[in-house]
Amino acid sequence: MRMSQYFLPTLKENPAEAQIVSHRLMLRAGLVRQTSAGIYAWLPLGFRVLKNIERIVREEQDASGAQEVLMPTIQSAELWRESGRYDAYGPEMLRIKDRHERDMLYGPTNEEMITVLFRDGVKSYRDLPKNLYHIQWKFRDEVRPRFGVMRGREFLMKDNYSFDLDKKGAIHSYNKMMLAYMKTFRRMGLKPIPMRADTGPIGGDLSHEFIVLAESGESDVYYHESWEAGHGYEDPNFDYEDRDLLAAWISYLTSEYAATSEKRDLEKEASLPGLVRRSRGIEVGQVFYFGTTYSKPMNATVTGPNGDQIPVEMGSYGIGVSRLVGAIIEASHDDAGIIWPESVAPFKVAILNLKPDDGAVFAACQKLYDGLLAKGIEVLHDDRDLRPGAKFADMDLIGTPWQVIVGPKGLAAGKAELKDRKTGKREELPLDQVAQRFG
Amino acid sequence: MRMSQYFLPTLKENPAEAQIVSHRLMLRAGLVRQTSAGIYAWLPLGFRVLKNIERIVREEQDASGAQEVLMPTIQSAELWRESGRYDAYGPEMLRIKDRHERDMLYGPTNEEMITVLFRDGVKSYRDLPKNLYHIQWKFRDEVRPRFGVMRGREFLMKDNYSFDLDKKGAIHSYNKMMLAYMKTFRRMGLKPIPMRADTGPIGGDLSHEFIVLAESGESDVYYHESWEAGHGYEDPNFDYEDRDLLAAWISYLTSEYAATSEKRDLEKEASLPGLVRRSRGIEVGQVFYFGTTYSKPMNATVTGPNGDQIPVEMGSYGIGVSRLVGAIIEASHDDAGIIWPESVAPFKVAILNLKPDDGAVFAACQKLYDGLLAKGIEVLHDDRDLRPGAKFADMDLIGTPWQVIVGPKGLAAGKAELKDRKTGKREELPLDQVAQRFG
Repeated sequence: MRMSQYFLPTLKENPAEAQIVSHRLMLRAGLVRQTSAGIYAWLPLGFRVLKNIERIVREEQDASGAQEVLMPTIQSAELWRESGRYDAYGPEMLRIKDRHERDMLYGPTNEEMITVLFRDGVKSYRDLPKNLYHIQWKFRDEVRPRFGVMRGREFLMKDNYSFDLDKKGAIHSYNKMMLAYMKTFRRMGLKPIPMRADTGPIGGDLSHEFIVLAESGESDVYYHESWEAGHGYEDPNFDYEDRDLLAAWISYLTSEYAATSEKRDLEKEASLPGLVRRSRGIEVGQVFYFGTTYSKPMNATVTGPNGDQIPVEMGSYGIGVSRLVGAIIEASHDDAGIIWPESVAPFKVAILNLKPDDGAVFAACQKLYDGLLAKGIEVLHDDRDLRPGAKFADMDLIGTPWQVIVGPKGLAAGKAELKDRKTGKREELPLDQVAQRFG
Repeated sequence: MRMSQYFLPTLKENPAEAQIVSHRLMLRAGLVRQTSAGIYAWLPLGFRVLKNIERIVREEQDASGAQEVLMPTIQSAELWRESGRYDAYGPEMLRIKDRHERDMLYGPTNEEMITVLFRDGVKSYRDLPKNLYHIQWKFRDEVRPRFGVMRGREFLMKDNYSFDLDKKGAIHSYNKMMLAYMKTFRRMGLKPIPMRADTGPIGGDLSHEFIVLAESGESDVYYHESWEAGHGYEDPNFDYEDRDLLAAWISYLTSEYAATSEKRDLEKEASLPGLVRRSRGIEVGQVFYFGTTYSKPMNATVTGPNGDQIPVEMGSYGIGVSRLVGAIIEASHDDAGIIWPESVAPFKVAILNLKPDDGAVFAACQKLYDGLLAKGIEVLHDDRDLRPGAKFADMDLIGTPWQVIVGPKGLAAGKAELKDRKTGKREELPLDQVAQRFG
């Protein structure tokens, strides 16, 4: 993409309304704009990051055997009356009346709807297990939305729902999602800690939150220092259907203490060798096992091997897709701007043309640009008529992992400068070797 | 995908509520389920089709130079008061009050919001033209939703918005979208006719609807018989920025009479040589040029070459992404079910195992399946424990373009039967040649 044509409104000043670094940088780098309180539009650069995160989430869901569906945003209140949650859910639920005065709502989550879809489509235990996911916008009417996309009202979430014949199967489904989540977040350069957590309005008695440590986190969390030494981040490389290996890995993963403040266990903390840390954390995902909490009241049963009707055992699992954009920035930035991990970067490489009105420099940059595009590499080409300082500042702010800097002096020697955004390391290399460097 | 594990609830009977063939087939083939009046959930098979259509739309938008953004579904009423449309828009607008009693709405379209994003981000004529699109769910509270996804309330739409300095530029942007739309629909196997149309609540004085002819269409349309002879369907193969060639092609494209009932010209019809046809039509897209209808009241100006503030010239362009699933089925089906064009098919190839409990047949099918997957071909493998007749019926209903049928008799001769869903033509071919057939 040529920046002279790109819709990329960066800001020089820190917006007054932004309290945390990810919010500031998302506004300054032109990723998003607020359109109402807690509601954001994604501009081209931010949209690319969002799509990259979505793609990783989707690939790992598919790899785990989950099947993608797409449920609508607007739901009927009737559905929620069936489960008993319509009255129980607080003012975070955006309630709507349609033109016929029917009670509707903007879905904050989809346990009820998926239970009905499952109930209508699956009749026999032979068709179990099933795991259905979707990536769809949700709405929660936060009383005080803040921190940009981290605590917005309209947000993109991946949620899925597992259906099993018995608790043993449901726990296996839960374990698979634990593994899928660790893989998902690792691919984005994050190191979340799965922590025992409250189940809240979802229900059930088993839940883990996946927490990324960050000063700007919304809650206090407690964990054993072994997590900082890298506990749980070895690459778990086994088949999802190898139940015993998976169970053993989960048991290892959760063997070290980690809990949200609601689930803190002071006695246990006192008994542990080594230190327990207290930090702030950002929740990027949560998993729940809730058994028959929805299947019983909503009559979602299958015919069992003996012909009897058995309510299915369920779990649900969520990843905050739009929130992850903020969480990744919280985890990866410096004073100059964002430092994108390659896996989610809006562009992998940027070309900085230091003298666009110099025909030879322009031609060299264009050739580089075409060469990189031909290799399928996503490139942002700063061909704007601006002084070098402004270009350096904008590109550090935007945070593409690699900057290729081309000016008249280097060109005369047939060279470009390559800058690694993360380390700041610079090196010169021959122009004709740039493309193959990113092969 | 193995059908024994797939969430694919097909129906044997025609659902009573479905009046048109696409609605019937979408329910019977397990593509969608209604969750409230005019609101649908997309099951795995339908979701794949929806994503294929979305991908084609996106690729053609990108090729035309449009840039993708993503605006939220919920908008502030304030925005629409700025343009004057909040009170003018009828009861199709889903109006909402949030917990602070602020007036919000579920966006039926996005002219206002994009105008504000543009106004805040673009200041100079040097940054024009711009064309921004998004693919997002919309809501229109139809008084009587029907025809399945063809006239639903929550629907997926690609809408984009062009910004130019003057009318000449805006007409070029309009022409580019006309070309992009013809390419988009052609790739889906459709032959829409662009017809002069009313501008309705969008405003402006130039608009075309892209109409697919079908008995179940919602409106009467009139067109010269030359369209049936293939007018306008030659492949227009030139650069989007070649203004003269593009203008000449548009002039040719629109040279033959075609109008919706609102824009019918009886005098012209009488004067034409040849026949004017009357038919029913399904609208799959619409384009508008409306100049400064929004930019003036909303003060979206750029600094011109002489330093004066110039309101931008705008157009907007919509494609009904979810509606297209129905429109394609209306255009491509037979008594047995759907006939997917390869470009949008949920799976390109199906393997029908006629005797899954026969170890040799199972192994042969599994080998075929793995071989096709290894070539990156999307395959649906019917490994269910059902009699052959039920499998034939289901696969014709689902409509994958190719069926590979494997039974004990053929296997003994080392052969599979290949069926072309569209023509019904069958041929035998050696098992080891199946994969390379789809190379």
